[in-house]
Amino acid sequence: DPALKVFTLNSNPSLAQEIAESIGTELGKCTVTSFSDGEIQINIEESVRGCDVYVVQSTCEPVNQHIMELLIMIDALKRASASSINIVMPYYGYARQDRKARSREPITAKLVANLLETAGATRVVMLDLHASQIQGFFDVPIDHLVGVPLLSDYFEEKNFEDVVIVSPDHGGVTRARKMADRLKAPIAIIDKRRPRPNVAEVMNIVGNIEGKTAILIDDIIDTAGTITLAANALVESGAKEVYACCTHPVLSGPAIERIENSNIKELVVTNTIPLKEEKIIDKVTVLSVGQLISEAITRVHEHKSISVLFD
Amino acid sequence: DPALKVFTLNSNPSLAQEIAESIGTELGKCTVTSFSDGEIQINIEESVRGCDVYVVQSTCEPVNQHIMELLIMIDALKRASASSINIVMPYYGYARQDRKARSREPITAKLVANLLETAGATRVVMLDLHASQIQGFFDVPIDHLVGVPLLSDYFEEKNFEDVVIVSPDHGGVTRARKMADRLKAPIAIIDKRRPRPNVAEVMNIVGNIEGKTAILIDDIIDTAGTITLAANALVESGAKEVYACCTHPVLSGPAIERIENSNIKELVVTNTIPLKEEKIIDKVTVLSVGQLISEAITRVHEHKSISVLFD
Ligand SMILES: Nc1ncnc2c1ncn2[C@@H]1O[C@H](COP(=O)(O)O)[C@@H](O)[C@H]1O
Ligand SMILES: Nc1ncnc2c1ncn2[C@@H]1O[C@H](COP(=O)(O)O)[C@@H](O)[C@H]1O
Repeated sequence: DPALKVFTLNSNPSLAQEIAESIGTELGKCTVTSFSDGEIQINIEESVRGCDVYVVQSTCEPVNQHIMELLIMIDALKRASASSINIVMPYYGYARQDRKARSREPITAKLVANLLETAGATRVVMLDLHASQIQGFFDVPIDHLVGVPLLSDYFEEKNFEDVVIVSPDHGGVTRARKMADRLKAPIAIIDKRRPRPNVAEVMNIVGNIEGKTAILIDDIIDTAGTITLAANALVESGAKEVYACCTHPVLSGPAIERIENSNIKELVVTNTIPLKEEKIIDKVTVLSVGQLISEAITRVHEHKSISVLFD
Repeated sequence: DPALKVFTLNSNPSLAQEIAESIGTELGKCTVTSFSDGEIQINIEESVRGCDVYVVQSTCEPVNQHIMELLIMIDALKRASASSINIVMPYYGYARQDRKARSREPITAKLVANLLETAGATRVVMLDLHASQIQGFFDVPIDHLVGVPLLSDYFEEKNFEDVVIVSPDHGGVTRARKMADRLKAPIAIIDKRRPRPNVAEVMNIVGNIEGKTAILIDDIIDTAGTITLAANALVESGAKEVYACCTHPVLSGPAIERIENSNIKELVVTNTIPLKEEKIIDKVTVLSVGQLISEAITRVHEHKSISVLFD
C-alpha cells in the first residue's frame, strides 16, 4: 500500500496533531502562510509522490479563507503526484445552504462539493453533516462519521436517574432517537410554531419531561438562540435540569453570553471546531473526535469498513 | 437579444456603479452580506431568467472572501436561469501564482480559472493579466482589456519634453514598448542582477535616460519595493525626474511609505482595485477604467469586436 501522510492546514492544527499521533505518524511538513497582499502561500516541504495523503481542515470561521487554503493545498498535492487526496473535514462549512429555500438562492454546500472535486479531492471524510443529503452532492466516496456515540458515552458515565433526550426542532429527531437508543431513554421534541404571522413563536413540548434530566442534542449550535430558548422552555415545563450537547460548536455572535445566562447546566461539544480563547467558559466541556477520526483514517487506508465505529 | 443586467459584489461597488451608469442601466438589486458565523449570504432581488448578466468583482484583498462571493453569486445566477454569466474581473487575484516556480507549488491562477468555470461562468472580462498565458487557463471566452492607452493618454497631456519609458524588470518590456509607441518615446530597462549569491542586487540601466523624464510602467505594484528602487536608480543615473504608473495598485504592506519616501514624483494607477482611505496620498493619481469596461461590455453584448478599444 502507498505510504499514508497526514497534513494540517490552519483551521484545526491541534486536532490534526492528535490524529497524526494517534495513527502513529508525524504531521507532514508544510507551511501555509500569506503573501503581503493576503494571498495564500503554501509550501509542501516533503515529497508526496505516490502517497495516500490526508488533509485535515475544518471549514469554520474564517470560512472562506479556510476553503481557499484547502483548495490550494489540493491543487498543490495533485500537481505533486500524490496517489490519493483524502480530505478530512471535521466541520463542513456552508452545510446549511443545502437547498433553495427561496428563489434565486445559491446552493453553496453543493458548490463547495464541486470545488473540492474540481481541485482534485479523491475522498472526503466528514462528521455529522447538517443534512445527510450533502453526501450525494459528491461523486467521490464520502465517509460520514457520527458524533452521537462520543456524546452518549460522556452522559452515560453521569448515571442520571431519569433522563429524556430532547430534540430542539423537528429536523433533529432522528439524531435524538439515536442518542436515546444508546442511553435507553425516551425522547421529547420541542415543537415550535407561530400561531399567526408576526406573533411570537410558541414553544410546545411533545413528550414527558416532568421531573426528568433533559439532554438537548443538536448538530450545530451557532448563535445558541434555539437551544437556550428550548432549555428555558424545558425548565418552565418542569424538567429537573437541562444539559445540552452538539457536535459542532460554531458559537457565533451572542452564543456564549446566551449560554452563560441560560438554564443550561453544562454544554458538551466536540473539537471539530476549535474554541477561541474567549469562548472557553466553565459551562462548556469539549470532547475530542481525534480518536474517532484516526481510527477512521486507519480503517479507510486498510480498506476496512468504518461503520463499526458508530453502529 | 436577452436583456443586459450588471451586478456588483463587495470588492469594487463604485467602479460597478460607474460602469452601469455609463452603459445607461442601473445596478441589479442584490444584497451580499454575511451570516453571524461569517458565511456569505447572497440574495438576488430581481429576476435574471434569460438575461445576459455581468458581475463586477475584483479579487483583491480580502482575496479569498472576494473569490468565494463571486463563486457563490455565479452559483445563484446559474440556478436562477441566467442566460449567460459574464464575469468582469478588473483585477485577477492569484495571477502571480501562474506556474510551478519550485517543486510542489500550487498553480492557483489555474485553480481559480477552474473554480470559476465549475461554478458556471460563461465568459470572463479581464484587464492587464500578469501573464497573458492565464487566458489559456480558461476554456470559456476571455476578453482581455489593456490599460496602456488610458495611462499613456494621461501622460501625453503633460507634454513632457524628453521622455523615456522604463520597464522595472525584464518581464515588463513588452508593456513598456506599447506605451513608448503611443508616446513616440524610446524605452529603457532596469536590468537587475545578483553578482554572487547572498550579495545585494545591482540595478543596471539598459538604455539612455540621462536628462530625461522617466516613466516607469508595471502591471501590479504590490509592496512597491521594485518600483521605488528602480526610481532611485534612475535618479542616481541622471534621469531628470521619475514618474511611475501601473494598472493594479495592490499597494500592500510598506508600499505607501516607500512611495512617499521615494524619488517618484507622481504615481498614476487605475481603479481596478479601490484604494482604502489610508492609501490615498497626494502623490497618487487614480484614473478610472469604468469607461473602457462599459464600452467593452456594450460591444460584447452586441457581438462586436473589442480590439478597437486598445489597438
Ligand atoms: N451560516 C448560516 N447561518 C444562519 N443561517 C443560515 C446559514 N446558512 C444558511 N442558513 C439558512 O438556514 C436555513 C437552513 O437551515 P435548516 O432549516 O436548519 O436546515 C436556510 O434557509 C438558510 O438560508
Ligand atoms: N501574492 C503574491 N505576492 C508576492 N509574490 C507572489 C504572490 N503570488 C505569487 N508570488 C510569487 O511571485 C512569483 C511570480 O512573480 P513574477 O515572476 O513577477 O511572475 C512566483 O515565484 C510566486 O511564488
